[in-house]
Amino acid sequence: MNSEQNVVCAKTPVRVRNPHIKSLSVDHLYHIALDTSDINKLETLFGDVKFVCFGGSPSRMEGFVDYINRELGLNENGHCPQNYAAGTDRYCVYKAGPVLSVSHGIGMPSLSVVFNEIVKLMHYAKCRDVTFFRIGTSGGIGVEPGSVVLTEKAVDGEFSHFYKMFILGKRVERPAIVDEDLIRDLEACGRDDDDFQTVKGTTMCTEDFYECQARLDGAFCDFNEEDKMAFMQTLKDHNICNIEMESLGFLALCRHAGIKGAVACVTLLDRLKQDYITVDIPKLKLWQLRPQMLISRYIKKKIGAEFG
Amino acid sequence: MNSEQNVVCAKTPVRVRNPHIKSLSVDHLYHIALDTSDINKLETLFGDVKFVCFGGSPSRMEGFVDYINRELGLNENGHCPQNYAAGTDRYCVYKAGPVLSVSHGIGMPSLSVVFNEIVKLMHYAKCRDVTFFRIGTSGGIGVEPGSVVLTEKAVDGEFSHFYKMFILGKRVERPAIVDEDLIRDLEACGRDDDDFQTVKGTTMCTEDFYECQARLDGAFCDFNEEDKMAFMQTLKDHNICNIEMESLGFLALCRHAGIKGAVACVTLLDRLKQDYITVDIPKLKLWQLRPQMLISRYIKKKIGAEFG
Repeated sequence: MNSEQNVVCAKTPVRVRNPHIKSLSVDHLYHIALDTSDINKLETLFGDVKFVCFGGSPSRMEGFVDYINRELGLNENGHCPQNYAAGTDRYCVYKAGPVLSVSHGIGMPSLSVVFNEIVKLMHYAKCRDVTFFRIGTSGGIGVEPGSVVLTEKAVDGEFSHFYKMFILGKRVERPAIVDEDLIRDLEACGRDDDDFQTVKGTTMCTEDFYECQARLDGAFCDFNEEDKMAFMQTLKDHNICNIEMESLGFLALCRHAGIKGAVACVTLLDRLKQDYITVDIPKLKLWQLRPQMLISRYIKKKIGAEFG
Repeated sequence: MNSEQNVVCAKTPVRVRNPHIKSLSVDHLYHIALDTSDINKLETLFGDVKFVCFGGSPSRMEGFVDYINRELGLNENGHCPQNYAAGTDRYCVYKAGPVLSVSHGIGMPSLSVVFNEIVKLMHYAKCRDVTFFRIGTSGGIGVEPGSVVLTEKAVDGEFSHFYKMFILGKRVERPAIVDEDLIRDLEACGRDDDDFQTVKGTTMCTEDFYECQARLDGAFCDFNEEDKMAFMQTLKDHNICNIEMESLGFLALCRHAGIKGAVACVTLLDRLKQDYITVDIPKLKLWQLRPQMLISRYIKKKIGAEFG
């Protein structure tokens, strides 16, 4: 029994926690413009996916698939990557070998829609042993700007690590629990000769970019610099290293789906010092590659371990 | 004093409820890739804006600006509309005469980011008497599919009409109160010979498209058809006509900004009958134009009353 469990564990299929979808003649994944009318095609196209990388901006995720293609030695002819979700402009979905690169927009609701549809896609394509990542940008707290933060705990604006939602009028809370092994493996992908540091820490996940992140530069602000700094100190006291808008929902959804998941975000500024980004655009673009580099190293290690 | 108030009222500038932005040398509207380094240019480009229409999908908002251009008799040479936010792919911003057409993505967090930046843009451009609309799609409850619902009340998943957020670790609740005059004027834009009905009703605003909207076709579902139908009946008992993902935040933010705002969404299906859309794509595309038609009629009436 134990050995069978191990076998199952070693080749874990992506499950859909919904008994009802079996009865659908065709399942429309509306927001990525794919459907199950030709389920064999989905398996042919996506059955080998092992890693799904989500990120906010469509162009950044197009850039990521280019990068992964180069890193894995694929697409040497330099073809434009195909957007499999081209039938909609809600999200984009690119593929490079075993890696899917998916945009999620801004905020947990936007993320949750594409997350549901990608989990169903992975299930229909009969993918196994899939790991999900969110790679993105964030504001740092007391961390050198340009650092990559691996989220070891995600909390909301009241320091709770539960993703909260209302289902059938009832409040449902799902814990955002991080896969410690995955975080340790990702941390080990940081190198001594990197020109940036990779740190583990708590991430605060907010529902707005301005007021909820205590920024003084939004359209609304009822607090002053002193209030902001006192709050930033509170965040530091809670060991919060960075602030963004998706980690809590992402990690809770991964946990609920039974899929290993991790969040790696670069910090673009230190909120203990400023509200607005002051580095120049070329540097900013380089910084945005850092979480991609780390995840790429992880993927190459895993692929090497399995096939190398 | 009263007459002065009336004058002020008749030419209400868009205010920014944030004293700190005065001290910014340059304000970067990061997510729409504009800044205040040439503030005169912002006034020249956007100073005449009176109506801002927000909608989820970038291509739909590009289509809307084409439509408004034709309706207002502008851009008769058929030039491609310019995306003023082309420096980013987070959102898009188009303009047709006094109308701005802006994409907001999916969900309240995504909406709130662009809302903040558009309010600041309108403020810097010295716009006056601006009205905001959200035009979109939704699931209907007991309403003929293809109907346009004007939101006269917005509620969240626990039937509260407060938009809730955490600011500096404290819970802040802002009421989503609808401008009754605006809703009445919009309702009057429905015509007897329309091939669809325009109704007023309560809108439920959720944080997810699948579980929170009691759909049986997401990646996760812990309830059955019977539970779903009992919940749909509860929604009907609360006079809820449709479900979407932005109305509550949109109306609360309009109220907080002191800007008149309204939400007009077409219903794509009746959730009392089904979870998935069954009308064909050409029909769906026609239906998606209906809120645009209504808003366009309103804009033309207002422009006619002022300048005609």
